[in-house]
Amino acid sequence: MPEEKLRRQRTGRANSSPTLEDVAQKAGVSTATVSRCLNAPARVSEATRKQVLEAVNQLGYAPNFGARALAAKRTDTFGAIIPTMENAIFARGLQAFQEELEQNGITLLVSSSSYSPQLEEKQVHALIARGADALLLIGHDRTPKSYDLLESKGIPHVIAWSIAHDVPRTSIGFDNRNAMKTLALEVLKLGHRDLAVISAPREGNDRARERCQGVADALIQFGLRPTDLPIIETPYSISNGAEAFQTLVSSGNRPTAVLCGNDVLAAGAISRARELGLRVPDDISITGFDDIEIAQIVSPGLTTVHVPHRKMGIHAARLLIAMRNGEYGDAPAESLELQVTITWRGSLGPVPLRNA
Amino acid sequence: MPEEKLRRQRTGRANSSPTLEDVAQKAGVSTATVSRCLNAPARVSEATRKQVLEAVNQLGYAPNFGARALAAKRTDTFGAIIPTMENAIFARGLQAFQEELEQNGITLLVSSSSYSPQLEEKQVHALIARGADALLLIGHDRTPKSYDLLESKGIPHVIAWSIAHDVPRTSIGFDNRNAMKTLALEVLKLGHRDLAVISAPREGNDRARERCQGVADALIQFGLRPTDLPIIETPYSISNGAEAFQTLVSSGNRPTAVLCGNDVLAAGAISRARELGLRVPDDISITGFDDIEIAQIVSPGLTTVHVPHRKMGIHAARLLIAMRNGEYGDAPAESLELQVTITWRGSLGPVPLRNA
Repeated sequence: MPEEKLRRQRTGRANSSPTLEDVAQKAGVSTATVSRCLNAPARVSEATRKQVLEAVNQLGYAPNFGARALAAKRTDTFGAIIPTMENAIFARGLQAFQEELEQNGITLLVSSSSYSPQLEEKQVHALIARGADALLLIGHDRTPKSYDLLESKGIPHVIAWSIAHDVPRTSIGFDNRNAMKTLALEVLKLGHRDLAVISAPREGNDRARERCQGVADALIQFGLRPTDLPIIETPYSISNGAEAFQTLVSSGNRPTAVLCGNDVLAAGAISRARELGLRVPDDISITGFDDIEIAQIVSPGLTTVHVPHRKMGIHAARLLIAMRNGEYGDAPAESLELQVTITWRGSLGPVPLRNA
Repeated sequence: MPEEKLRRQRTGRANSSPTLEDVAQKAGVSTATVSRCLNAPARVSEATRKQVLEAVNQLGYAPNFGARALAAKRTDTFGAIIPTMENAIFARGLQAFQEELEQNGITLLVSSSSYSPQLEEKQVHALIARGADALLLIGHDRTPKSYDLLESKGIPHVIAWSIAHDVPRTSIGFDNRNAMKTLALEVLKLGHRDLAVISAPREGNDRARERCQGVADALIQFGLRPTDLPIIETPYSISNGAEAFQTLVSSGNRPTAVLCGNDVLAAGAISRARELGLRVPDDISITGFDDIEIAQIVSPGLTTVHVPHRKMGIHAARLLIAMRNGEYGDAPAESLELQVTITWRGSLGPVPLRNA
């Protein structure tokens, strides 16, 4: 009771709802920490979490109260712009994103930019014009005009599937470069020296670019020259992966391991290998990236980088809701880097003896 | 020149643009036929097409002129609500739909209803509230409230992936029941008598319901009792298909052919068959529906119903644009039924000898 009185005197608002600031002051932490406790509890130590929750309970704080003033302008509609719906790369993360929004009464509208920054710019414009409260975007590459639109209209936005340490934007994702380097190091440890990469076009796609850089990093660590690495660029599709694979194995210097920029390309490579009578991994190894469902149904199963799609989607939703609700005020929300792991299946094996 | 004069006198509008009606009158056909010529020329005889195009050229008619008055209210944003983004069932058709809209300066916003009519209703509401000019919807099952919203707001809408002959709504799709019956007849002709079905939940999903009915139709045609047909219902996913397959083959009366409601379930069934040491099709046949890319990468490839996804998407876009532009006036736009075919790959073979 005296606590409660004190708070009212301090804030000067009788009968008003407790704010995020009140909770922070009571718990003796920053408002950002309170917000993190509520939106991303896994990122906060248990001691801090307990402290904050105690303050929340004692004050009867209900998140979002402080943002009620904004409610009149709200549409409770969020937008997401993904590069493609044609394969399942973004589907699982987006589904989790939508489910989390849905639980908060928010409807999601999605656009697909076909990997075109120009088309994405139109879609950013359309979603803002149609009243989206906040936007989820994929990767950091986009037109300056798109960023201008977002900033001039003050639209909260989070960038997913990619983390950048050198930009001030809030992003939630993983280190694509380091993830691919880790996988490439495993390939090299198995004795492979003739590597090749099938990548999506790197222009306008920071994930594709960073994954190629990751392979180069691994080669350098093994004292090999990354400039010798053959890279075929082709849009993500099973049939494009198959074609690129055939081009690589038909060349004079056939690689012993083909690292694919994602599972879709790798699935195409594996099925074409079978058609060409090449045994995977006995004759040639193939790896993927993403660990989507097709990684399990190809034969052999794909060794690939496991991306925590659902976790990324859920955290992106919580972060974006908190930003929309004004819980970060004018401070930028912190980015969140997720860890990826390698899923081992049958498609990566030791270098064939004749090449060893 | 005298023609032109006559038209002006008749319409009483000097210097005005020629209308769809003018073209119809000049060509001696109905306005619906003119619209069809412009939007779905493949559906009109060559003689009629020539006649109409001649009238279009002579009058200098440019489609959409008549709808200019509506332009002020337009947002050039269309919506689509699909049941799921989690697998590629709708992705290819939707991509074609979007490309066709994009060529006409229209931005597409997509929602995913997770096969929930209640969630779809919220999304219909949100898309209308956010100013969508027109909507693409999948299948005929939805809440009466959703239909009420569309009609009371006068939002042009087209239903795809399903054709219904007994409702007045404009749809573009194929006969799911007849398509599955055709495939089931092929299975029966190969000597199979112990069939089983893995289907999506039929409640709220007319495509799933009709496909199951198609299998029953084929059984009846062969003098078999459809009530004996085991049907497992499970949401579309590779892992659910695998689980359902295992349940079926572990039962006392193991089927010799498993017909799956789509390729995603079938891909799961095929990969589980391999894990269980069952040879496809020597020990057991498996079929799919849709002919999406995974049908080709599983081993053996899936025998499945080929759905013309891109064609459906393109025609749906043209139809919906024409409706939005007021080219059908108050008359309902005609539905368009597409033909499907069977794609033969390795997963369907003769009944095993011991079962013949």
